[in-house]
Amino acid sequence: MLIVMEALADDEQIERVCAEVAELGYTAHPMPGPTRTAIGITGNRGPILEAARIERLPGVHALIRVTAPYKLVSREFHEANSHIAVQDVTFGGTDIVVIAGPCTVESREQLLTVAQAVKAAGATMLRGGAYKPRTSPYAFQGLGEEGLRLLAEVRAITGLPIVTEAIDTETLPLVTEYADMIQIGARNMQNYALLKAAGRSQRPVLLKRGFAATVKDLLLAAEYVLNEGNSNVVLCERGIRSFDDTARFTLDLGAIPAIKELSHLPVIVDPSHAAGDWERVLPMARAAVAAGADGMIVEVHPNPAFALCDGQQSLVPERFATMMTQVAQVAAAVGRPVAGSHPSDIQK
Amino acid sequence: MLIVMEALADDEQIERVCAEVAELGYTAHPMPGPTRTAIGITGNRGPILEAARIERLPGVHALIRVTAPYKLVSREFHEANSHIAVQDVTFGGTDIVVIAGPCTVESREQLLTVAQAVKAAGATMLRGGAYKPRTSPYAFQGLGEEGLRLLAEVRAITGLPIVTEAIDTETLPLVTEYADMIQIGARNMQNYALLKAAGRSQRPVLLKRGFAATVKDLLLAAEYVLNEGNSNVVLCERGIRSFDDTARFTLDLGAIPAIKELSHLPVIVDPSHAAGDWERVLPMARAAVAAGADGMIVEVHPNPAFALCDGQQSLVPERFATMMTQVAQVAAAVGRPVAGSHPSDIQK
Amino acid sequence: MLIVMEALADDEQIERVCAEVAELGYTAHPMPGPTRTAIGITGNRGPILEAARIERLPGVHALIRVTAPYKLVSREFHEANSHIAVQDVTFGGTDIVVIAGPCTVESREQLLTVAQAVKAAGATMLRGGAYKPRTSPYAFQGLGEEGLRLLAEVRAITGLPIVTEAIDTETLPLVTEYADMIQIGARNMQNYALLKAAGRSQRPVLLKRGFAATVKDLLLAAEYVLNEGNSNVVLCERGIRSFDDTARFTLDLGAIPAIKELSHLPVIVDPSHAAGDWERVLPMARAAVAAGADGMIVEVHPNPAFALCDGQQSLVPERFATMMTQVAQVAAAVGRPVAGSHPSDIQK
Amino acid sequence: MLIVMEALADDEQIERVCAEVAELGYTAHPMPGPTRTAIGITGNRGPILEAARIERLPGVHALIRVTAPYKLVSREFHEANSHIAVQDVTFGGTDIVVIAGPCTVESREQLLTVAQAVKAAGATMLRGGAYKPRTSPYAFQGLGEEGLRLLAEVRAITGLPIVTEAIDTETLPLVTEYADMIQIGARNMQNYALLKAAGRSQRPVLLKRGFAATVKDLLLAAEYVLNEGNSNVVLCERGIRSFDDTARFTLDLGAIPAIKELSHLPVIVDPSHAAGDWERVLPMARAAVAAGADGMIVEVHPNPAFALCDGQQSLVPERFATMMTQVAQVAAAVGRPVAGSHPSDIQK
Repeated sequence: MLIVMEALADDEQIERVCAEVAELGYTAHPMPGPTRTAIGITGNRGPILEAARIERLPGVHALIRVTAPYKLVSREFHEANSHIAVQDVTFGGTDIVVIAGPCTVESREQLLTVAQAVKAAGATMLRGGAYKPRTSPYAFQGLGEEGLRLLAEVRAITGLPIVTEAIDTETLPLVTEYADMIQIGARNMQNYALLKAAGRSQRPVLLKRGFAATVKDLLLAAEYVLNEGNSNVVLCERGIRSFDDTARFTLDLGAIPAIKELSHLPVIVDPSHAAGDWERVLPMARAAVAAGADGMIVEVHPNPAFALCDGQQSLVPERFATMMTQVAQVAAAVGRPVAGSHPSDIQK
Repeated sequence: MLIVMEALADDEQIERVCAEVAELGYTAHPMPGPTRTAIGITGNRGPILEAARIERLPGVHALIRVTAPYKLVSREFHEANSHIAVQDVTFGGTDIVVIAGPCTVESREQLLTVAQAVKAAGATMLRGGAYKPRTSPYAFQGLGEEGLRLLAEVRAITGLPIVTEAIDTETLPLVTEYADMIQIGARNMQNYALLKAAGRSQRPVLLKRGFAATVKDLLLAAEYVLNEGNSNVVLCERGIRSFDDTARFTLDLGAIPAIKELSHLPVIVDPSHAAGDWERVLPMARAAVAAGADGMIVEVHPNPAFALCDGQQSLVPERFATMMTQVAQVAAAVGRPVAGSHPSDIQK
Repeated sequence: MLIVMEALADDEQIERVCAEVAELGYTAHPMPGPTRTAIGITGNRGPILEAARIERLPGVHALIRVTAPYKLVSREFHEANSHIAVQDVTFGGTDIVVIAGPCTVESREQLLTVAQAVKAAGATMLRGGAYKPRTSPYAFQGLGEEGLRLLAEVRAITGLPIVTEAIDTETLPLVTEYADMIQIGARNMQNYALLKAAGRSQRPVLLKRGFAATVKDLLLAAEYVLNEGNSNVVLCERGIRSFDDTARFTLDLGAIPAIKELSHLPVIVDPSHAAGDWERVLPMARAAVAAGADGMIVEVHPNPAFALCDGQQSLVPERFATMMTQVAQVAAAVGRPVAGSHPSDIQK
Repeated sequence: MLIVMEALADDEQIERVCAEVAELGYTAHPMPGPTRTAIGITGNRGPILEAARIERLPGVHALIRVTAPYKLVSREFHEANSHIAVQDVTFGGTDIVVIAGPCTVESREQLLTVAQAVKAAGATMLRGGAYKPRTSPYAFQGLGEEGLRLLAEVRAITGLPIVTEAIDTETLPLVTEYADMIQIGARNMQNYALLKAAGRSQRPVLLKRGFAATVKDLLLAAEYVLNEGNSNVVLCERGIRSFDDTARFTLDLGAIPAIKELSHLPVIVDPSHAAGDWERVLPMARAAVAAGADGMIVEVHPNPAFALCDGQQSLVPERFATMMTQVAQVAAAVGRPVAGSHPSDIQK
């Protein structure tokens, strides 16, 4: 940690700060500069919890922390990419994983139709919401356990592993029972009770970035899960809020290389929620792969005009198949095949 | 709802949209304009849930919704200010309510010292966290039930009603048992399970705005609570995230008159979290009252340098007393006494 | 335009609004709804300038404009992509155009070295700042006309057309004299005097998005240039400000498909300024092409550690060559060759 | 400056960094820590311009600058508040200065009516735009020199000093000739040519914060003006862009105490542009004074429904008089009279 003194701090104030640092058991290194003195601290084994004792001393301008507040997710202590397996699907390896399915499970027929279509087009995992967090209490909230049962049934038919969202600790056990991977949604990214419970469940977790979360916040949220002993976490960029309302959210693809630098965890992209409009899903899916994402999660609906949720951003199966072709071409261009695809699939 | 057609939409496309509107049981009102046609819809009794059926028709540029998505919290159907009582404290009336106390309950002595000091200075409610949502899993997470017990004990001694945060549905029953008012924090503003459970509890709720929530999102979150039958909700502005990192959060005091226009619920301000620095708490507390807030919630600690949480933004009791004097003067200037104060208190 | 009345507006208020609309020479179409009345306006030939006369009438809740405020840049009245020629380089066609060069012209040797290196790697235009807008008055402000002369000299040697920034109307004539394309930077995107002067110059303009400008603001800024008779405008996404400081700016690649929908103008991407770090330039350059950008502008420096400006985000020539290979592969994957490249260049 | 090394940086890398620091003529202070080494630099007399040489060395994680990049505007080297005189009006003293007038000068009658009304209500300076920067090229752009002449004429009649905006360097000389104070608007806050020209003019400058500018950016923009020898700068907070569209801009009143801490320059608030709606102007004007602002600039129009610009946010003269009464009461509560007012004016 570095203590920055005010420009006009006098010797007595500097000495008092050094004395306080010594009293806390650390070593102070005063460095006089042209306009002010800075004081380095060494000797601490972790974050300095008593920072406020220093920060409020007279003459102290600011404290600057040098150590990142997360550890288990950091690439600094775990250089190699983590590989997270969900059944026979692996995130974080060379392959690009495509998860697809409806926003919400509406019926057996709807889910099965979509699942078979996305499988045919090359998806290797199925998504579908049984519990939906909705901004308005009057919007459709999902089928609940019936939705989970339908997911399991369609998995049995198609062989696609399933990911579905747990929206609270009450329903988490049920979701854990049915799902191959637990999704924690953007609104719950800082729901610590849920993060901890997911961390104890040992089921792989798909953790979506909150729409006002910094990359650091996202890594700290993942740290909660790993800290409970579950290191099977896949991160997901899905768009942040900005001043521009041209799109529903601003997809922050710059977060992909940033996360890759800072962490060993895999990171995928949700191009559907950010776009908010199906016509923009394809370019953003291609861009995600080009930016280095390990996969994506995409909404597909057989008849989006009648979808109970997010119809505007869902692709019809034909459009999804076009997307898969394009994604496979970009993936090939960056030297990463789409999981489950055969080289001969990649053609114009 | 208004359907905006593309500039180049042809008659056939316009007719098809009108036909779809009719099939949904509503009436279409095409309005040709210089560059494009707009189509008004009437005959709906609430939000048009089938919007996606229209939005995806060829030639449709955009849909514009006219009706606000919240109802119970809206001033349009409830013109008078709501008065929310917490024991003998009333939010939303003429009086400005000041809630004060430590960020976190640390010990009996700490809590009692602060409670007696803030009471002496004029606060009429006590705050203190027993469960703390922390961005880092390694930060102090609160005393739990022991903290609740200490709050109840200090309430018995001082007579101050208490507000404390419930961070998940598991601990909500316990919080409800001890607290006079349940706080739902910024990170949980869209934790719908928690909002619904709080809605069923009948205990007054202090709902803090998420740091990436629009005013509309906040009102929709409150709608969740009211929709379960609990109309005792007080809103709290506590700062939003913006591109500027000069302060910890950007306190959005413009939200106060905006909420007052849109809703009948009381709204208070938390100047401590936004400022992130005790020196800026006083000006923001004064400004909150001047902007029309119904009260405030402020962090006070007897020895902030040793606080286990948020020491940098906590006021010492003497400073809090100064704040109360200033707040009372501004409150008098806007014709609203501070709750519990006597006119003779307001002097230079 | 649509007038939304308050829920409790009475018949008299509605009639008064309709009378005002009629007095302005337009036709009012009242549409009663379940909670409120909306009133459509037709008969206007452009934006309704007298909107405030309606907006302030009693009972009016809000006005909603249906027509986009820009016209010349809009795709609605100009369906085909515009092709903008700068010497023998064309923006907006099938080819991806890569502009490269140093942030700032520092010396003849530096500029020539970079120009020859980027040409060898496949760039077809040269960038380099002679006038630099700097946030701090103490930062290096550019070589001025000497820089322009060096650019012209290096153009003569290499054959690469040049783009350089005009930072004010005083220096614009000089920039116009030397440059093949005038860059208007992010900080000047709403410098209307400069936009108009560039509009009168007939020289192609590279207009960068302001870091707090919405897509609509960018299109309106371009409208200023076109409105003066210069339709040779290329737009450039270069990152916006958001709450996250992980990168220098948040590159908004979602703006690419959005601009393509709304406008016929070409749009390129600046991956260097947003990344703020050379390691992240490559993934963002690839992603830009995958998202549908018509080209990019990239900073290259022979010895970035000694660059007078933005060294941290500049690529060394070898790294730039790697970038070109990767960009060419992604470009091929989306069916768009890099301008000037030969098919045989695209290999692993 | 502090150099933060990567956790895995080895001794050789650390030594190489220290050698580079020494070669630059500074002293390196390595401080080994539990997870990484940090290296302090001393011996520099100002910002280290060669930072990129260090930043790109192997093993360097980040550089942290300790010294603020502005100097002349900083309170660290100029402890007392600056007092800026515009004729007999003084900004930065005890008095709250209220500037009022129409958004745009439309006619002699309009301007004179407003000027007399605002003077009667207690304003001591007159505002009015002759040149208007407008987002759309089709919006009214101001009367130009005719507007300046009318301002001068109305000043002669009323005695109110005038502030009006200069939008480019071409018109600055004319504005300087007529106006008592030059306004530089939000869109031009980083128009450095204009800032420098205003700095050379010696006329007091009202510098508005850009809507995407941090407080630091604003101070650096002011530094441009002071660096040219003109220290008569008054800053103005007028709202920033955020994700919330409830108001036109998010008025950042927390910037007031922040600027007061960092700088000796006076700071006022524009509550009209941020609110975007006249009903919210009053609460924000009161809050600005309570937050510590040195004054405000407010839009007033005799018939806002017919204003050529920003009618929706303009106050009618009666409403402005009410505002002045309220502002005077809040000002009295914080111990600061409104300039030009007599104590006897402050009554309910």
